[in-house]
Amino acid sequence: MSVITIERKVLEKNDAIAQSNRALLARHDIFAVNLVSSPGAGKTSLIESTLQHLAGRLRVAVVEGDVQTDLDAQRVARYQVPVVQIVTNGACHLEAQLVRDALSNLALDQVDCLIVENVGNLVCPAGFDLGEAMKVAILSVTEGDDKPLKYPAMFQHAAVLVVSKVDLLPYVQCDLARLKANALQVNPELRIFETSCTTGAGIPEWSNWLASASARPPRGA
Amino acid sequence: MSVITIERKVLEKNDAIAQSNRALLARHDIFAVNLVSSPGAGKTSLIESTLQHLAGRLRVAVVEGDVQTDLDAQRVARYQVPVVQIVTNGACHLEAQLVRDALSNLALDQVDCLIVENVGNLVCPAGFDLGEAMKVAILSVTEGDDKPLKYPAMFQHAAVLVVSKVDLLPYVQCDLARLKANALQVNPELRIFETSCTTGAGIPEWSNWLASASARPPRGA
Repeated sequence: MSVITIERKVLEKNDAIAQSNRALLARHDIFAVNLVSSPGAGKTSLIESTLQHLAGRLRVAVVEGDVQTDLDAQRVARYQVPVVQIVTNGACHLEAQLVRDALSNLALDQVDCLIVENVGNLVCPAGFDLGEAMKVAILSVTEGDDKPLKYPAMFQHAAVLVVSKVDLLPYVQCDLARLKANALQVNPELRIFETSCTTGAGIPEWSNWLASASARPPRGA
Repeated sequence: MSVITIERKVLEKNDAIAQSNRALLARHDIFAVNLVSSPGAGKTSLIESTLQHLAGRLRVAVVEGDVQTDLDAQRVARYQVPVVQIVTNGACHLEAQLVRDALSNLALDQVDCLIVENVGNLVCPAGFDLGEAMKVAILSVTEGDDKPLKYPAMFQHAAVLVVSKVDLLPYVQCDLARLKANALQVNPELRIFETSCTTGAGIPEWSNWLASASARPPRGA
């Protein structure tokens, strides 16, 4: 079928560009993470808390992907880090070419860690490699503990799961133990952090892990 | 470009099937709504609360769309209504053909109102007509008041916005007035309900509106 063939070509082209992004990042010793989640799970808030925690310890740059607006880039820019906004104009996920364009706007020799915030979408970004070292899935407890089972691809493609908004657990129907068990059922290798940007819980653990990972040479080097 | 041409053909084919779905629903005097939201915004909970409120007053059937699992259909089936589960196997939105297949499994002469729960995705389902009378967008206050600006297409395509989880407003950074203003900025025609399935707030207003709309002859008739 022609549609499938063209979809495959799009993915193959994307993957080739992703590999060249990965090589470029490796040459500059940059650890890159691709943050993926539903809209409103707290990706931008996690970036803000991470930047606060790592200020002066790690040189972070941020690429913001959004369907519309530069609201997220405005939030991140307050932390005095390099930030590039990608507006996809309706497209439901980032592709490697967009990240390549964003990288050309960054002084890569002055970056240790690149955080790419994908479009808020728990389905489509799963299939698109951007050249990152790993995908980090964020799942808010307000979304419910069944989501890893209902949207398994994203959790299978991620290496890390950041559970967000744990301060809201008393007020929502979400069993944290079941959420984690469901996530590990679809991907037993997941590293899981439990966080709240409101209380600060778990932010040091996540941020310190990110700093440690950024200090190691990337696998592609 | 060939990709664009094929995408257009896919949409044209979808729209033709959607029109035949619409005609079929009109022949049976069925009012159909297409519930769209992020994962975890509370679509299934809203359906459950609606079924409880309208029990004995309106004959409702439900079509559940999910990437994986029949967890939602299991929840809805407890309310003794006809329910059909569509599993998209990774696809990020429902298409009209899938709904047509689902309709063939329902006794349409015994249905006044059809609720279609789309895949949890605030981007992709916006562009796909299923034959519904209208799209109903659900937005949880936990997702933040900026979402209508960041994902405008969904709010432009919807006729109704159900704000969900308003019981959590004291615990999250979300200005309800700003959320509504942002939604009305992208679509001044939106009818807005403020609800909580936990406290029951707003459920009678929303449910009664749905019952009234279902009692009127559909526009396509």
